[in-house]
Amino acid sequence: MAVVFARRMDNLDDSDTREILKLTERPEVISFAGGLPAPELFPVEELKKVSEAVLEEGGIQALQYSTTQGYLPLRQKIAERMNSKFYTKVNHENIIITSGSQQGLDFTAKLFLNEGDIVLCESPTYLGAISAFKAYRPDLIEVPTDAYGIIPEELEKILSSKNNVKFIYVIPDFQNPTGKTWSVERRRKFMEIVNKYEIPVLEDNPYGELRYDGQIPPSIKSMDEKGLVIFLGTFSKIFCPGLRIGWVAAQKELIDKYATVKSCSDVHTSNMGQREIVKFMEMYDIEENIERIKFLYRARRDSMIKTMEEEFPKEAKFTYPEGGLFTWVELPQNINARDVLIKSLENNVAFVPGGAFYPNGGNENSFRLNFSNMSEDRITKGIKRLGRVLKEYLCNI
Amino acid sequence: MAVVFARRMDNLDDSDTREILKLTERPEVISFAGGLPAPELFPVEELKKVSEAVLEEGGIQALQYSTTQGYLPLRQKIAERMNSKFYTKVNHENIIITSGSQQGLDFTAKLFLNEGDIVLCESPTYLGAISAFKAYRPDLIEVPTDAYGIIPEELEKILSSKNNVKFIYVIPDFQNPTGKTWSVERRRKFMEIVNKYEIPVLEDNPYGELRYDGQIPPSIKSMDEKGLVIFLGTFSKIFCPGLRIGWVAAQKELIDKYATVKSCSDVHTSNMGQREIVKFMEMYDIEENIERIKFLYRARRDSMIKTMEEEFPKEAKFTYPEGGLFTWVELPQNINARDVLIKSLENNVAFVPGGAFYPNGGNENSFRLNFSNMSEDRITKGIKRLGRVLKEYLCNI
Repeated sequence: MAVVFARRMDNLDDSDTREILKLTERPEVISFAGGLPAPELFPVEELKKVSEAVLEEGGIQALQYSTTQGYLPLRQKIAERMNSKFYTKVNHENIIITSGSQQGLDFTAKLFLNEGDIVLCESPTYLGAISAFKAYRPDLIEVPTDAYGIIPEELEKILSSKNNVKFIYVIPDFQNPTGKTWSVERRRKFMEIVNKYEIPVLEDNPYGELRYDGQIPPSIKSMDEKGLVIFLGTFSKIFCPGLRIGWVAAQKELIDKYATVKSCSDVHTSNMGQREIVKFMEMYDIEENIERIKFLYRARRDSMIKTMEEEFPKEAKFTYPEGGLFTWVELPQNINARDVLIKSLENNVAFVPGGAFYPNGGNENSFRLNFSNMSEDRITKGIKRLGRVLKEYLCNI
Repeated sequence: MAVVFARRMDNLDDSDTREILKLTERPEVISFAGGLPAPELFPVEELKKVSEAVLEEGGIQALQYSTTQGYLPLRQKIAERMNSKFYTKVNHENIIITSGSQQGLDFTAKLFLNEGDIVLCESPTYLGAISAFKAYRPDLIEVPTDAYGIIPEELEKILSSKNNVKFIYVIPDFQNPTGKTWSVERRRKFMEIVNKYEIPVLEDNPYGELRYDGQIPPSIKSMDEKGLVIFLGTFSKIFCPGLRIGWVAAQKELIDKYATVKSCSDVHTSNMGQREIVKFMEMYDIEENIERIKFLYRARRDSMIKTMEEEFPKEAKFTYPEGGLFTWVELPQNINARDVLIKSLENNVAFVPGGAFYPNGGNENSFRLNFSNMSEDRITKGIKRLGRVLKEYLCNI
């Protein structure tokens, strides 16, 4: 049979990970593996009124084809919120609406990458970005990081020796998977190097507003003097993911290119969904909604970290995330977290082994834990159980 | 500045077409250029009740992340409807939900194409498919067609001489742009050749249910014995396009591949939108809705064709579409429809010049007319005006 797939499909075999994740979904398992928001905070009742109002005021327009760049009032509102939260200076012309920020990752790769081009990323980095990029067959080069972000000297070493780096992918706020946040000084040093080499930067910021301690630091985009930074945002974590509404913010010339890509990929994002988000922001206070989310997640993070401090063996090092949805555990070098997961599943507790977050493999001695999607009781119970597994496992090695 | 885009972006320059389309959007212009459904038939009031019911019965699930393949009851319903309308034998495992059928076009190209691979298509073919495919830089080879569809001998000639044909793209029902429908005999001959060479077929069927005369013929998919046919469907024309809900129907192994592509492209399609369509089909009769659409479009087609018969010069040949949204006009070889459009816009009437529908250019002596989006009065007025322009233009050549 002459059915032959594109070479890219060889890069996208996720069957291993999917098999693991299936195991974590058994109802008796306390799973820290996912990254879902807490559904109990979704504004279901409000959305009933919102969708009625959208249909009442502009039903015909909401159900018709629409512009590729997205619903103007939504783009205006996003620009306004970005400027007030992340110190940027963007307007509606700098925004295109995407179907979730995963689509922003895909489109960036589609816009920039030929086979064999180089993308730089943090080490480790977001799994969903790795698969989005791999579909375009680049070389993913991991830049070493420390507690403050990408190490500038390491970045410069790579940029000065490689000439087909197409963009640098970073998650400076509550990184997925590590939960780390870049320091302001590190952001500035990073942008100095970026401006020197004039390489586009993809700043992925899905969790920035979910900060439980201190103030939101200036975004990389706010330090962008040469129009090099492309910012990805989403309503998935501050509102709800089921509507699939995200955005790309960049200089207008780049947004035009994203519109060309979007036009041939899926024409435009659900018009109803876009209008529902605007109408929600008109009828209700999204900031209040975000405060509720932060209050809940802060308590869950605190429970998780506190229990980890009490119950984890001292060889397990973990990050204290100032926001976002995850913490990250590093075990001694000789331990493989995939093996720990097998033991852990026998005790009905699950996580994502860290190896998957390293695009070039290795680093199997780490794992990611999610705290947004579970009650404090269940978090405490699960972490205690995991602590016992770890202690036992480390003893027997 | 080191901002360098992928080679594919060179293939996607649509600025010419966009400039033309902008002109057609002036309010005084009677434009037959678009392809929009009639918004007055969108079930706005029904959708108010539908979205409330979706949120009432499963609001939390509707707003949370969901499975990549799509909402199970929607996939079941689609399979059932396909089998009853298009004589297929598919079930929910053969269906994946996409964000409109444009995404099905994009994903098919992403799944199959390396640079330089060959895609066969009808000549002319759908503009949106041309751009979706071109983003993956294939060679698009046009297969000659006649009144009954692709000419089997011409298809076989190409297949027997080329060895990297990845798939064949066809629109057998009320083709966009020509409005032509393949005969049943032609479908069978086509599938004989396809089965012999075992080449995947992408059957695009956005309008099949909008048939104004006679019976729906068996789909190509219904003649698929070797699991080679991939069927694209959409709710955009039988319900509304603003929700962006389409689907791919194919053998399960292929659907798994599409799921891998979708997972790294945009995770899943709007969960609210998917559930709203299912709920609409539970609470109301979508078949009745389709009958209303057919009644309206049939009258509009009849007005357009009748006026064309009366007012167009005899040198202008056009198709009689048995359904769908378009008719297609061919002028004498030496006439360029882009020049006619300039004259036509001076008289405030617009259409899409046909050259854009030929992936390899040429054939500038044709144009496409849409009849779904305008009242009969306006159609008659616009076609009369266009008739005068054509007569005058042809006289002066």
